[in-house]
Amino acid sequence: MSKGTVVLAYSGGLDTSCILVWLKEEGYDVITYLANIGQVEDFDAAKKKAESLGAKKVFIEDLRAEFVEEFIWPSVQASAIYEDRYLLGTSVARPCIARRQIQIARQEGAQYVSHGATGKGNDQIRFELTCYALYPEVQIIAPWRIPEFYNRFVGRKDLMEYAEKHGIPVPVTPKAPWSMDANLMHISYESGILENPKSHAPADLYLMTKSPEDAPNSPDVLEIEFKKGVPIKVTHVKEGKSKDTPLDIFSYLNEMGGRHGVGRIDIVENRFIGMKSRGIYETPGGTILYHAHLDIETFTMDREVRRIKQGLGVKFAEMLYNGFWYSPECEFVRHCIDKSQESVEGKVQLSVFKGQVYILGRESPKSLYNEELVSMDVQGDYDPCDASGFIKINAVRLREHHRLQGEHHSKH
Amino acid sequence: MSKGTVVLAYSGGLDTSCILVWLKEEGYDVITYLANIGQVEDFDAAKKKAESLGAKKVFIEDLRAEFVEEFIWPSVQASAIYEDRYLLGTSVARPCIARRQIQIARQEGAQYVSHGATGKGNDQIRFELTCYALYPEVQIIAPWRIPEFYNRFVGRKDLMEYAEKHGIPVPVTPKAPWSMDANLMHISYESGILENPKSHAPADLYLMTKSPEDAPNSPDVLEIEFKKGVPIKVTHVKEGKSKDTPLDIFSYLNEMGGRHGVGRIDIVENRFIGMKSRGIYETPGGTILYHAHLDIETFTMDREVRRIKQGLGVKFAEMLYNGFWYSPECEFVRHCIDKSQESVEGKVQLSVFKGQVYILGRESPKSLYNEELVSMDVQGDYDPCDASGFIKINAVRLREHHRLQGEHHSKH
Amino acid sequence: MSKGTVVLAYSGGLDTSCILVWLKEEGYDVITYLANIGQVEDFDAAKKKAESLGAKKVFIEDLRAEFVEEFIWPSVQASAIYEDRYLLGTSVARPCIARRQIQIARQEGAQYVSHGATGKGNDQIRFELTCYALYPEVQIIAPWRIPEFYNRFVGRKDLMEYAEKHGIPVPVTPKAPWSMDANLMHISYESGILENPKSHAPADLYLMTKSPEDAPNSPDVLEIEFKKGVPIKVTHVKEGKSKDTPLDIFSYLNEMGGRHGVGRIDIVENRFIGMKSRGIYETPGGTILYHAHLDIETFTMDREVRRIKQGLGVKFAEMLYNGFWYSPECEFVRHCIDKSQESVEGKVQLSVFKGQVYILGRESPKSLYNEELVSMDVQGDYDPCDASGFIKINAVRLREHHRLQGEHHSKH
Amino acid sequence: MSKGTVVLAYSGGLDTSCILVWLKEEGYDVITYLANIGQVEDFDAAKKKAESLGAKKVFIEDLRAEFVEEFIWPSVQASAIYEDRYLLGTSVARPCIARRQIQIARQEGAQYVSHGATGKGNDQIRFELTCYALYPEVQIIAPWRIPEFYNRFVGRKDLMEYAEKHGIPVPVTPKAPWSMDANLMHISYESGILENPKSHAPADLYLMTKSPEDAPNSPDVLEIEFKKGVPIKVTHVKEGKSKDTPLDIFSYLNEMGGRHGVGRIDIVENRFIGMKSRGIYETPGGTILYHAHLDIETFTMDREVRRIKQGLGVKFAEMLYNGFWYSPECEFVRHCIDKSQESVEGKVQLSVFKGQVYILGRESPKSLYNEELVSMDVQGDYDPCDASGFIKINAVRLREHHRLQGEHHSKH
Repeated sequence: MSKGTVVLAYSGGLDTSCILVWLKEEGYDVITYLANIGQVEDFDAAKKKAESLGAKKVFIEDLRAEFVEEFIWPSVQASAIYEDRYLLGTSVARPCIARRQIQIARQEGAQYVSHGATGKGNDQIRFELTCYALYPEVQIIAPWRIPEFYNRFVGRKDLMEYAEKHGIPVPVTPKAPWSMDANLMHISYESGILENPKSHAPADLYLMTKSPEDAPNSPDVLEIEFKKGVPIKVTHVKEGKSKDTPLDIFSYLNEMGGRHGVGRIDIVENRFIGMKSRGIYETPGGTILYHAHLDIETFTMDREVRRIKQGLGVKFAEMLYNGFWYSPECEFVRHCIDKSQESVEGKVQLSVFKGQVYILGRESPKSLYNEELVSMDVQGDYDPCDASGFIKINAVRLREHHRLQGEHHSKH
Repeated sequence: MSKGTVVLAYSGGLDTSCILVWLKEEGYDVITYLANIGQVEDFDAAKKKAESLGAKKVFIEDLRAEFVEEFIWPSVQASAIYEDRYLLGTSVARPCIARRQIQIARQEGAQYVSHGATGKGNDQIRFELTCYALYPEVQIIAPWRIPEFYNRFVGRKDLMEYAEKHGIPVPVTPKAPWSMDANLMHISYESGILENPKSHAPADLYLMTKSPEDAPNSPDVLEIEFKKGVPIKVTHVKEGKSKDTPLDIFSYLNEMGGRHGVGRIDIVENRFIGMKSRGIYETPGGTILYHAHLDIETFTMDREVRRIKQGLGVKFAEMLYNGFWYSPECEFVRHCIDKSQESVEGKVQLSVFKGQVYILGRESPKSLYNEELVSMDVQGDYDPCDASGFIKINAVRLREHHRLQGEHHSKH
Repeated sequence: MSKGTVVLAYSGGLDTSCILVWLKEEGYDVITYLANIGQVEDFDAAKKKAESLGAKKVFIEDLRAEFVEEFIWPSVQASAIYEDRYLLGTSVARPCIARRQIQIARQEGAQYVSHGATGKGNDQIRFELTCYALYPEVQIIAPWRIPEFYNRFVGRKDLMEYAEKHGIPVPVTPKAPWSMDANLMHISYESGILENPKSHAPADLYLMTKSPEDAPNSPDVLEIEFKKGVPIKVTHVKEGKSKDTPLDIFSYLNEMGGRHGVGRIDIVENRFIGMKSRGIYETPGGTILYHAHLDIETFTMDREVRRIKQGLGVKFAEMLYNGFWYSPECEFVRHCIDKSQESVEGKVQLSVFKGQVYILGRESPKSLYNEELVSMDVQGDYDPCDASGFIKINAVRLREHHRLQGEHHSKH
Repeated sequence: MSKGTVVLAYSGGLDTSCILVWLKEEGYDVITYLANIGQVEDFDAAKKKAESLGAKKVFIEDLRAEFVEEFIWPSVQASAIYEDRYLLGTSVARPCIARRQIQIARQEGAQYVSHGATGKGNDQIRFELTCYALYPEVQIIAPWRIPEFYNRFVGRKDLMEYAEKHGIPVPVTPKAPWSMDANLMHISYESGILENPKSHAPADLYLMTKSPEDAPNSPDVLEIEFKKGVPIKVTHVKEGKSKDTPLDIFSYLNEMGGRHGVGRIDIVENRFIGMKSRGIYETPGGTILYHAHLDIETFTMDREVRRIKQGLGVKFAEMLYNGFWYSPECEFVRHCIDKSQESVEGKVQLSVFKGQVYILGRESPKSLYNEELVSMDVQGDYDPCDASGFIKINAVRLREHHRLQGEHHSKH
């Protein structure tokens, strides 16, 4: 008698293959689910592997377009960046993946979902909060937090032995001495030899971007057009080539950014569970977009609106990092940020070169930039005398403060 | 009979030379004051020029060391950045310059101070708020806001004519079609042909940094050592060369950054007076320090302390930009930020290359990074089962929200 | 020849009557405008007085309903409170009054508007920012900031003499030794004998509320029903009497609050121009609503949404106080706050008694309160063991901090 | 053989008496610890009871003075208030109690601590985070989260039976149909019949304050003197009586507040674990101090410093509520707030009457209030013309916004 049905987030790798078999051993019917969010993967092979290991059903889902439009675009609008540096490429993929997993679970009548995320990381939280938010009654099987499982599989050697014993194909190439996570937005690298925060990352680590040293010796100049805070077109200025669907735009920016080594960072960050960890990320297209969006936003948005929006963006990034995409507060903040983007429209020209993005110029039909007003050569509708009053009134408080301090100093 | 004594912030250029003579015409005794804050300038020539134009006294003051230690260092601690991009090189110099001007005014018994800042910019505010804060009774003469002055000198041609008439040496080289402001921290470029936000900056604009395209084809690797959030030593890893006084450290970082084209930005920003303006900045050493400090700070500071400190840093940047260095709130925030930096200590290794700064690794005796705790290979003092409870409790609120929405959806 | 037409915000009092005549003397055609925002006033008499003093046209506008619906209601939604105490009764009236004044100016083809606000206060700013925002080309005549005017009318005696000379009816009752401002939301008292912050306010100052000492010895119990964060009905529980239009609801709450002495405060506050001033306010209905709304909001809104909304509310209160109702940022924030109120719905029971508002109970069809979940007697869908993991994970960071400090302590 | 030593937070009541015996049954040596933080309690009887039940050692600790000085005072400085209403009387006691418990555990060589807090509440978190922060290796026994315990003691009846069986004295008076928590700062009431948020609290619930209806018909007027943001003296103005040690001051304010029914609230709040709960609180002295401190703070603190401090205070209140008193961020914030209080000094006069606190006046040697500057009758060192420039410059941005919108409207 089956204990019930589990929808397992399956990658095709050693870990989740073992989990698949282990779940069957434990008495569950297992449906595997593999999301295509832009990672390099042999999806057919993964499908066959899952079937051969006894999956009751196998789902391979292409989520790339919705990943860009519903998850990456709002993050671009928000200028979402965690702890001033990390563009949240892994974080933003998790709710997208888990949402589909929950849809499958509901549709297949599964009471359980399972995943292979570790017990020390952020991903377990991002996956599970999404699951609980969208399917509150769901039960989650997280083997790496179940003592019988993690005590049995202490090291990779134990998994290998288990695999051999259960006819699970064992990887022939040796595992890289770090772990990675890839999707359309980025690749992250952590663990293993990277755990020593002092040691430099090996030069051959990066898969998505060229080394800046080996990148072309002349820049590519792009023009990105925005509407409501999201890109609607990217054009290679010299070649005249352009892209205008979300997935095409983002993929092209990845290509350009990758070619020029854009978007590599090596950081120590603070996990939600309270520990610091070292991560290396490459986010080529996301980095270009971050800079381009920032430029058009500052150009078109009122200063004080932007100040408030900036604060909301910081909060949004924390929610995203911590796994709260599907939360009332994140829905609220996304709504507010979206509202702030109504006039964020126009074109930005930039060059990508040797790991860097350079903004070159911008234009917009909705800009609050007023060339005549700001000009040093014409006066425009501006009376410089007003500035005297402005400064004097701003100084009232400062002079009072000085007066008080003076009084006290003279007394003592 | 003299109307009184004015201390004029004098640059040696055409504008302030005309102001000097005009102030004398108006009946003031004029003391000129020129601060050396690291700009390239012939200070001797400026001195002679001022004397020849009738300055009662001439002060040339080397403020470079105090500029670095008392103004740049607190900005580094704060990760001060305006509107996510501008490192505030001009803003941070103003209170430093004006403070000395006020000291001179008090010491010389001058009731007036004067400057050549325009009536549309931020600098007039930064100068004058500092003056009012430190010398509340001072009177400020800002010729570019006095109708008799600015209506007389509508264009550069009027200044040139006035200069010729009054024996003021007229510059022989044609003026660049933009204005610039230089100090140890940066050079800014604005106005003139740069006022069109769409047009690209000319390649020959930059004076402090090499073009990334012409920069060396191999990186320089530096190690910067921090204590209490400020650099105490920089070492060129390969050459073994090192610097350890604030001014030397900062100058060396400028040299390294300049050599590799680090720190160029082209932005539109929001001025305090409410208009948008376009500015181009190059901040070589400041950019390197910004990245290095961010890295060591995240490595050594508790996550939640940093979150609060980050908010204070955003406020600090606004105060600095708007000219409120000498305000009760800025003093308060500097105190708090300084407190937050107590454990920000350690060494960061980084490379500078083709306009970019790459963090390579870091170490610290005070890090909160715990390699064993975070390791995927050892369990450390951490029970993965705890994460289940953590996630479940975090989900309580999300599930309630879903429940309520579900109820409503089913009703309607 | 007329210099043009001025729309003067006219109160019928001595000051604005003198301004009316003075503006005529200065060569302007004067249209007077008096807004009825709920103050006690003889509008007919004011009309006749303006006409007799030579007003070209006289507008008396009943703005009470729009004042409640478009200005007070959003402030209730925002829980707008300045510096933790002041409910902004004067601030919120200003954009309402000035908006209509601008409509009249446009409609009458007037290039000028004028008001009698002093040069040290907030109201001049609130009026004028609204005018500039809605009618950027307008010119503003603020006599109390024009030297020829304020040097001529140094004291009340000068106004009296001018009035007598120009046939302006002179008030027969002596002026109270303070100034006041009244509208539907509140009455404020300041200046004169109140300028000494130490002296107690006289007992007979208050006009809108009974002294708590003289208030009834038994409470009135009210039930207020909210929808989308604004009251849609108030019921006197015992009497069964109820009101359900915005103006009626607010007026009834004023009556009830006034009867019981609710909403008196005596504070020192910080004006926008940078000085501290002492103000005494009575806000009977607004105080009741503040408490009732807070209660239903906390009952129905998610904790984290509320936290963000609270921050927006603080910003909104500052904007409102400083006169930025018609600004891009205030429009943005009002939109966000309005969004947050979607589920703020339900009924609050409260009693008003001797100056105080007591919340007694609340109910809502949209509450996130889950009696079973929170109950100490039933377990509900909650596993107490989860709390252990939650606490342990929250402690990870604290234990690390202690570990690091311990290391350092043991070293030193 | 003993499993080890437990320090149990013991109240003398039925629950913790059963826990004491149960822990012994489980094989632990039990040390009981009862903190006197101002609750009404027969400490001698509790001592004897613990001894008779087999406690190895019994600690009764008078923490009242340190509770006021080290915990309540910083909360007063911070104006700590949770969700705009709750003065945190329970929250602030927890770290004080747990700190001493940990000191005893270390001193007695106990590896365990235990408490009787429930598994759905905040107190378990506040206790345990303090324990983990101060004694990271400690092990915590929380019986109400241990299935064997809570499944055995499902209702009060089970505890009664167990008590009878094990010679634990059973309370003779019936339990109130709610639970309460009392200390020097407040009494809280929740659970039982209060769990229905709609039902009104019974009139006889309150133990610390008189009903406002029964309170005296004339006010008491007090003068509270502050230094560095904490009260150093309270004087009954009429009686001339005064108190000047922290514990005496606070106790006297409790007496006065209690006499006049000050500080009762009935709220629904958001617990840290994500559920809403209903609580009723009475905080007589704390409420008086909250208002008095707010008044003297606004009187003496710069506007912008206070704005930043207000934000820090909101964060502090959340930390305190959630149990993070002993955390790096709370230590940091306490330091910053303490710094902000340097000039918060002076005297506030207020009256307490029928549940309400009325501020009457204030004075300070360090006030930033400038009676001449603010006066409507004298001009002081203030030029009203400056306000025109101030307003015009503040309007630049608003006019630009209008211009842009106008352009768009005219186009469409």
